[in-house]
Amino acid sequence: MILGIDIGGANTKIASSDGKSVELHYLPLWKNSKLPEALIDISSRLAPEKVGVVITGELADCFPDKEAGLSYIIDAVNNAFDNAWFLDSSGVFTKEKRRSIAAANWMASALIAGKDFGDCIFVDTGSTTTDIIPIIKGKPLADVTDFKRLQRSELVYSGALRTNIAALLDTVEVNGTRSRISSELFSITADAFLVLGLISENEYTCDTPDGAGKTKTDAMRRLARVVCADLTEISETEIISIAEQAMEKQVMDIEDAINDVAKRYELNTIIACGLGEFLVKKAVKELGFDSILMSDKYGEELSKVFPAYAVARLIVENQ
Amino acid sequence: MILGIDIGGANTKIASSDGKSVELHYLPLWKNSKLPEALIDISSRLAPEKVGVVITGELADCFPDKEAGLSYIIDAVNNAFDNAWFLDSSGVFTKEKRRSIAAANWMASALIAGKDFGDCIFVDTGSTTTDIIPIIKGKPLADVTDFKRLQRSELVYSGALRTNIAALLDTVEVNGTRSRISSELFSITADAFLVLGLISENEYTCDTPDGAGKTKTDAMRRLARVVCADLTEISETEIISIAEQAMEKQVMDIEDAINDVAKRYELNTIIACGLGEFLVKKAVKELGFDSILMSDKYGEELSKVFPAYAVARLIVENQ
Repeated sequence: MILGIDIGGANTKIASSDGKSVELHYLPLWKNSKLPEALIDISSRLAPEKVGVVITGELADCFPDKEAGLSYIIDAVNNAFDNAWFLDSSGVFTKEKRRSIAAANWMASALIAGKDFGDCIFVDTGSTTTDIIPIIKGKPLADVTDFKRLQRSELVYSGALRTNIAALLDTVEVNGTRSRISSELFSITADAFLVLGLISENEYTCDTPDGAGKTKTDAMRRLARVVCADLTEISETEIISIAEQAMEKQVMDIEDAINDVAKRYELNTIIACGLGEFLVKKAVKELGFDSILMSDKYGEELSKVFPAYAVARLIVENQ
Repeated sequence: MILGIDIGGANTKIASSDGKSVELHYLPLWKNSKLPEALIDISSRLAPEKVGVVITGELADCFPDKEAGLSYIIDAVNNAFDNAWFLDSSGVFTKEKRRSIAAANWMASALIAGKDFGDCIFVDTGSTTTDIIPIIKGKPLADVTDFKRLQRSELVYSGALRTNIAALLDTVEVNGTRSRISSELFSITADAFLVLGLISENEYTCDTPDGAGKTKTDAMRRLARVVCADLTEISETEIISIAEQAMEKQVMDIEDAINDVAKRYELNTIIACGLGEFLVKKAVKELGFDSILMSDKYGEELSKVFPAYAVARLIVENQ
């Protein structure tokens, strides 16, 4: 088996090159990271002959800088697997510890998307962020650092689960009145999409902001807190409206960024994937562009772990 | 001694009615609250004959609803003090557990401000929030719940220490380019004001987002992360510029809210206090209104714990 692994700050995703093994593990690096043990467990269960790895978790704020983050993650991988290769942000596999290994998961996806779909914009909305990668003649043209990509609309730090509602919205309409909101981490996009029926409790694969449960009532209580209310003060209809307004703002942010990139490169075919594929679909519909959903092409499970699947396929195709 | 206590979600402030004893304790209710022990310690050290209490910590997300939050806090107070009186949001002292005790710290301040300064708008920017209370003929006219006050510009959930930079800003200018930002809790206003020299390390009286130190370099590292950079990727000048942009946005938010309230009640004298008095001063200057700084009138220490001082004075004046 050839295995691909995508190690992010919050989630570690794995997929085999044939697409038959798929796993998504919530392994937040910033608190008592269980990454080393989890990788050893994966290694002993699946015993892959070769492993391709992409890394984005180096920005987690448990690390003093990206160098230290990369080093920790690379050591954990090498400790678990004998034959692991890291993709760098120029699309080259290496065994060396190099700064250019940082934030390269979109490179794997984009190289595969370029092969499978030609000129396009590859958009992957995960739990936390959205990558927007222009691809022309098989070559991904995004900048190589997250810092630069934020400036070029190639990275929107907004995702389907972990995004703070207070980071999305400035104000919200409640009972026909515009209201300011709390700036705490009281509620996240996973609460909004759970309340709207767009994700299930099982798909709420991250911690809740208040450490409480993942039922609809729990999520409603957290959303109410965004306007400093509890469930005795605000109706379900108004809470659903807050969730909808958060989604609208998020879709608009993604839409604006896609539009920026589309104009810069004169591209109008969008390949959508990730946990938040439904958000990309909405954004693209607003823009009137063509879209191809990875879930239609490869199935929902592979769409959610696409960078892991892509890096596994790159290992096979480079052999 | 008559003691006033203001119990917020993050900080508990105490002051005696003569203004000679002043203490500010960082006691976050949402994590292993040490409030009960801290109150017992205060009681045995200061042995006040009577205590006035105002409460705002009931919204903390460790509590399922405000009722439960109030009940926990009231029990902790009564366990520590024999003769404690709670101010409710209509300005009446009670010993009963009543929902109206919630979020009443601004009522104490506003009653005293009305006595000392006549018709005015009382603005208290604390670590986390800003209260904006119109007062006419000694009567505070703000709505009684945080939920309603957010809708009436009488509460801006933005403060001098704990506010997430990602909740303040949508984008930021870096090196002459507009950049999107990370939506994580990577950096807070305390980092911005420390970097700008507006607060000292000692005044950074809350946890750091990454659990690291409170030096200028630590704060700069956290601010850099807001644009997904580390200190090798971005200059000190650019980080200072991010801090300035966060302050400008925060001042503008406070300014807009003061202006709303000023227009509604035709008031243009502003009484400013709190840890973030300097922000209120900037906002009022932009508006061209008259301002009186509580720190000029009562000294800096009392300005920072004004609701505690005010509730102590109300106890004395009601005797």
